Amino acid sequence: MRAIKIGLFGFGCVGQGLYQTINNSKNFEGEIVRICVKDRHKVRSLPESVFTYTKEDILNDPSIDVIVELIDNAEAALEIVTTALKNGKSVVTANKKMVAENLEYLIDLQEKTGKGILYEGAVCGSIPIIRTLEEYFGHEPLNEIKGIFNGSTNYILTKIFDEHLDYTQALEEAKEKGFAESDPTLDVKGFDPKFKLSILLTHAFGINVSPEKIANLGIDHLQPSDLEFARKHGYRIKLIAQASRKNDEVFACVLPQFIKENHNLRNVNNEFNAVTLNGEFCDDQLFIGKGAGSLPTGAAVLSDISALSYDYKYEYKKHYNQGKVHFSSENAVTVYVSFEKPEHIDLNEFEAVSEKFFCFDRSYVIGKIKLSKLLQSKWVYNSKISVVQFDNDTEISEELDLSALETEILELRKGQKLREKISV
Amino acid sequence: MRAIKIGLFGFGCVGQGLYQTINNSKNFEGEIVRICVKDRHKVRSLPESVFTYTKEDILNDPSIDVIVELIDNAEAALEIVTTALKNGKSVVTANKKMVAENLEYLIDLQEKTGKGILYEGAVCGSIPIIRTLEEYFGHEPLNEIKGIFNGSTNYILTKIFDEHLDYTQALEEAKEKGFAESDPTLDVKGFDPKFKLSILLTHAFGINVSPEKIANLGIDHLQPSDLEFARKHGYRIKLIAQASRKNDEVFACVLPQFIKENHNLRNVNNEFNAVTLNGEFCDDQLFIGKGAGSLPTGAAVLSDISALSYDYKYEYKKHYNQGKVHFSSENAVTVYVSFEKPEHIDLNEFEAVSEKFFCFDRSYVIGKIKLSKLLQSKWVYNSKISVVQFDNDTEISEELDLSALETEILELRKGQKLREKISV
Repeated sequence: MRAIKIGLFGFGCVGQGLYQTINNSKNFEGEIVRICVKDRHKVRSLPESVFTYTKEDILNDPSIDVIVELIDNAEAALEIVTTALKNGKSVVTANKKMVAENLEYLIDLQEKTGKGILYEGAVCGSIPIIRTLEEYFGHEPLNEIKGIFNGSTNYILTKIFDEHLDYTQALEEAKEKGFAESDPTLDVKGFDPKFKLSILLTHAFGINVSPEKIANLGIDHLQPSDLEFARKHGYRIKLIAQASRKNDEVFACVLPQFIKENHNLRNVNNEFNAVTLNGEFCDDQLFIGKGAGSLPTGAAVLSDISALSYDYKYEYKKHYNQGKVHFSSENAVTVYVSFEKPEHIDLNEFEAVSEKFFCFDRSYVIGKIKLSKLLQSKWVYNSKISVVQFDNDTEISEELDLSALETEILELRKGQKLREKISV
Repeated sequence: MRAIKIGLFGFGCVGQGLYQTINNSKNFEGEIVRICVKDRHKVRSLPESVFTYTKEDILNDPSIDVIVELIDNAEAALEIVTTALKNGKSVVTANKKMVAENLEYLIDLQEKTGKGILYEGAVCGSIPIIRTLEEYFGHEPLNEIKGIFNGSTNYILTKIFDEHLDYTQALEEAKEKGFAESDPTLDVKGFDPKFKLSILLTHAFGINVSPEKIANLGIDHLQPSDLEFARKHGYRIKLIAQASRKNDEVFACVLPQFIKENHNLRNVNNEFNAVTLNGEFCDDQLFIGKGAGSLPTGAAVLSDISALSYDYKYEYKKHYNQGKVHFSSENAVTVYVSFEKPEHIDLNEFEAVSEKFFCFDRSYVIGKIKLSKLLQSKWVYNSKISVVQFDNDTEISEELDLSALETEILELRKGQKLREKISV
């Protein structure tokens, strides 16, 4: 094993975590020789001489073996990674957006350059999932992969259910404690876990699916009445990223989900993440670990750097042999949809509706809707609508007659306050 | 990647599982070319021509790349593995006893022959733990590794607590369902999980500790009154394999443990296993999966064979750089010890005793005792004594005066039925 010379881009939370893990690690032969950062005026914890503001100082330095890319900006990251691979350097990155949106291109580029890019730190922080999928499950037909892929929203949802806060209060607390960013959009709307899910689709099922094809809804529309509904039924809500295979079709989405007592994700709380797998051979597997943070993610990045010391590359076994497996959004999920006014939702887009509850201030229906509708229908993204999925094995009461329901809603729209139940 | 020619020893539960996973796997380039078995008269599911009864037919066949050893007998297995490595073949085995008892020798033999031996299937079935320790945690100072490493006893304990059975009833049911062997000694006395723990000590902490140096107590002495004690306090009992590091000392043991509500191992039931890690960088990690069974273990073996296609070997990073870390049995654990008669136990061997309960038929004390005492003291292994550990963070009430307690026991021995509490 040779000592590795590392050129680092970015010295934020994860970059500093990596520096710390390298300094406190055992038996690691390597060092960060140069760090490229953007802001010349920020006070740094290391001597000025380690830093550069010119990326070529690192990308063109022949003594540097490995480029570690830990910056925020996905476009700039892609440029760095591309140049690095073309310059004959291996790459480690934790940039989930950049990897998810360019995975087809990156696989191609690795083939062309013969150099590898590893990105364990991009998915669920310290949970060892990507190489595990490659190395342990590379030959196993998987049926399902799902879990809690985002620490910020899990922290917020934990506060909501443990401390009876509403969404806005919990978000504020998460920001104060550093568990949510000042602009939390990517997290609370479910984009961040979707990028991770998109990456895992390649390693778990061998299919590259660009993130915009995957439906995602977040937790930012959750209303007090939704939380009340959950509590009344003994549920907690978790933001679940999920993909499942039925024969040759793979379905995937990120949705808030009601989680029952004794569910294996029920006690995965605060900033912890979890990944569950179901495979033909292994049956059920569950991995839990810290999904974010300076040291946990830094350690994941370090494990990738270490793997490069013996020229490890992802083989993308399933990708290269994917056969007939393909992505589809034509399956239906069972959801609870709450709304202020009936005209905000379009019941025609449901496959079936099995429960309804109309009230002056907030109503809801429970029914089945296809992922393709969740992806395309504008009303779903109305901030006055909130959607929460039921677990597949939740028993839903018998179906209601949709046309009768339509009539009711029409009557309701006309001001005829027809109600079956009144909220208490 | 080249197609791998496999010579298989043993065609029992795991061997047949491996055959099935290979046949149903995707993208695996390899085949089992010959199987060596012992019993000529057993009816086999494959054509006679695949089998041989002479080990040299496989060990001396130059067309065979990889020897997969899946027989029961540890001594015979060691012979096969030794010859295979010396003959220039890589080895995959799932024989935890053979690996645990000979790991120092096997590491040495790998060095000398240049060939590797992989044994993921030997530890916790489908849970990907050995390569994960090597690859993800090879540079991280770990503080603790523990878990449920034995499926048979976990199945038995699950039945005991879910269905209010006593130990003997639950064992019988486990045997009927195929979850316990006809001679369950290695499982119920905690030897099987100890072999696994011994192997993990090498990969987690870099120390080779032969199994006989590690204290193990099983679940076969558990009395109805112990179960009653557990239920009354809201505990379940699990057989826990555990190792922890304090500075440069590593402690390890296998003991039944009281598991509180909300403990992360509480809901790991039936034949499932679990491994928890705590590291300096990653903090807490938890892995859950099926710990035994034909397909789960077969898949673990297959993942090892697959890794050999790119000549993967364990690097034993920590072993080769272990530095000052060493094994010790000089730490004390807090245990509940129940007994029929006070003369069965030796209170002098306790560091401290904090609670006692004397009764005509069954009494107990709670106190701290060193692992070295658990390992050496004969009274501990008396079938009329049962020992259950408390979790480290269980709060134990204040210490009792040991000499006063001695006097009480002496009086009790003399027939003076001095009791503080009477059981109800």
